[in-house]
Amino acid sequence: MNDVTQQALDIHKKLRGKIEVTLKDQLDDPDKLKLYYTPGVGAVSSYVASHPEEARDYTWLNNAVAVVSDGSAVLGLGNIGPLGALPVMEGKSMLFKQFADIDAVPIVLDVHSADEIVSAVKAIAPSFGAINLEDIAAPICFEVEERLKAELSIPIMHDDQHGTAVVVLAGLINAMKVTNRKLEDSKIVVVGAGAAGTAIIKLLHKYAKPDLFAVDSKGLISKNRTDLNVEKNKLLEYTNFSDTDGTLEEIIQGADVFIGVSQPGLLTPKMVESMNENAVIFALANPVPEIYPEDARSAGAAVVATGRSDFPNQVNNALAFPGIFRGALDNRVRTITDEHKIRAAETIASFVTKPTAEEIIPSIFTPGLTEKIANQITAS
Amino acid sequence: MNDVTQQALDIHKKLRGKIEVTLKDQLDDPDKLKLYYTPGVGAVSSYVASHPEEARDYTWLNNAVAVVSDGSAVLGLGNIGPLGALPVMEGKSMLFKQFADIDAVPIVLDVHSADEIVSAVKAIAPSFGAINLEDIAAPICFEVEERLKAELSIPIMHDDQHGTAVVVLAGLINAMKVTNRKLEDSKIVVVGAGAAGTAIIKLLHKYAKPDLFAVDSKGLISKNRTDLNVEKNKLLEYTNFSDTDGTLEEIIQGADVFIGVSQPGLLTPKMVESMNENAVIFALANPVPEIYPEDARSAGAAVVATGRSDFPNQVNNALAFPGIFRGALDNRVRTITDEHKIRAAETIASFVTKPTAEEIIPSIFTPGLTEKIANQITAS
Repeated sequence: MNDVTQQALDIHKKLRGKIEVTLKDQLDDPDKLKLYYTPGVGAVSSYVASHPEEARDYTWLNNAVAVVSDGSAVLGLGNIGPLGALPVMEGKSMLFKQFADIDAVPIVLDVHSADEIVSAVKAIAPSFGAINLEDIAAPICFEVEERLKAELSIPIMHDDQHGTAVVVLAGLINAMKVTNRKLEDSKIVVVGAGAAGTAIIKLLHKYAKPDLFAVDSKGLISKNRTDLNVEKNKLLEYTNFSDTDGTLEEIIQGADVFIGVSQPGLLTPKMVESMNENAVIFALANPVPEIYPEDARSAGAAVVATGRSDFPNQVNNALAFPGIFRGALDNRVRTITDEHKIRAAETIASFVTKPTAEEIIPSIFTPGLTEKIANQITAS
Repeated sequence: MNDVTQQALDIHKKLRGKIEVTLKDQLDDPDKLKLYYTPGVGAVSSYVASHPEEARDYTWLNNAVAVVSDGSAVLGLGNIGPLGALPVMEGKSMLFKQFADIDAVPIVLDVHSADEIVSAVKAIAPSFGAINLEDIAAPICFEVEERLKAELSIPIMHDDQHGTAVVVLAGLINAMKVTNRKLEDSKIVVVGAGAAGTAIIKLLHKYAKPDLFAVDSKGLISKNRTDLNVEKNKLLEYTNFSDTDGTLEEIIQGADVFIGVSQPGLLTPKMVESMNENAVIFALANPVPEIYPEDARSAGAAVVATGRSDFPNQVNNALAFPGIFRGALDNRVRTITDEHKIRAAETIASFVTKPTAEEIIPSIFTPGLTEKIANQITAS
């Protein structure tokens, strides 16, 4: 067991929970009880019941987010179930508080079909001001998010999809400056067509319509493939307009950008050498990336980003979701749109005033980041 | 609007939520992020997934309770829905923290059938160490609680039923001392056959098998009634062994104890006069009791309890549920049983060392109450 592993187990066992519920005022005398509980609270409940649009002004709804997972795709660990997911969801709640002062509650679900997840989230929805979906496997995650967005009137975001896509776009905006490219003229190969890959492709298409190619474990996604599910078929609306077939090794040739949300070690130095000069590599598999930054640079890459904090240019969702949810709550946004995501990405990118190969993405500890993103998440 | 009403509205609007989520440690440097979130948390999730029985040692499960309501029977307000219920559930979460240091999360449900409530609670159950059901209307509340107790392996308690029953029993134990009676020899009339009334009857029967009679809005519950639902029919296992028919006015004659969980003003002084000498009156309708203490005493009652804090002998669930849940969590109790409730009631009663007509029930602020109850809630 390495150091971080043992330390993480130790500190979790010591704390027995990383979050707690605390009171905004103490209930230490009978007079306060009469206001916060019976009989006083009865007046508040009556008022809220007859003025539901004001519920958030009298309760914690204005600041409460559910972090919902069924544990079917937890980190790189896969389908480890709701209890296994709970430490991650508690950690996510910590990030919400630390970076956006949001009260986030981990909700891990013992149901796994799209129908059941949608039913459970809809049932508990009046308890929260927004819903962060997390670590739900593709393709179920797509249906769950779409249906919840359609059927609920509070903001819903599957962070594995959109948080990742926003930060990738932010990093690419700056990587384009460093390598003197334009996104709309670039050939981009995205490897991994799950939650993150799909959202990245859709957002890049929306932003700049670059020449996109999607690769999954069977190869390049093309209209000649007969094994594609509905969601992968939809990717053909955004990718592979030349109807090319082939392998990653083939399609990566002459590409400007590689974005991997896939498997450790999948991108070889030889493949990087076959890309255009000064290639941009986002190797986001965690903890072991598709290619290590040193190897990518040795093979000619100009800019390398990973998901790790111990290399430069960490693609970390925590750059995006705190500000997006803060803004959605504060500005009474009902639906988080592509425009919101693009504005969030541009805002993140703008925090690096002079992008270099070693710095295309700001630190998550950058002061003002959450607030500036939040200001972009507006209702109209 | 009276003072408390306006003050309650004002303070709720000012605070915008009475509870919040806070962190047991700050996430203010990258090293902590690595332990509490990725990559360190991955080891914790793996471990918990393969050792589910230890999940509570590594997460907040050991201290997290859901306060679940569908808003169908909120205080005396009736079916005001989930948003209307939220201020009360937040208040209940405050009580959990203040009196038992438990992290309670308000979960208000947008579903109302027994099937749907059971499905929703089962779906989110892995997120919590115990479930407090609250303000769910009878008779659905009975089926919901029974099914959840049977189908989940964490403690479930509908507080409107059992919290009330425990405190009523505690008060009666001391009222018997004050009036020099024995519970097993007493004639007791319970008016109101909803959640609280039903649970009170069952617990009193279990404890002492007194001569019990149940009255609902149609009169005395007897085997000749043809309008009884399943739950009210079941009450005949515990009540009315003489197969009497009649009205409250008739059955109250010669009774030793009146317990009202019903309607304001329902018990007249004349009825009290028709009871046995030194009658015991629990007039628990809130905020206006079945009879005011002064009127009951003028008519000959020896001991009067209400649900109000501005009269002596307040029957307040907050005497019971914090200690019951504290004990259930700490002692890894899977099911809260009648024996637990009886021990909780006896413990509460024992905090009044010399019961008098003015003091049969201790204050909820009594030091040591929660701990002493918790010690009685053990796994075997």
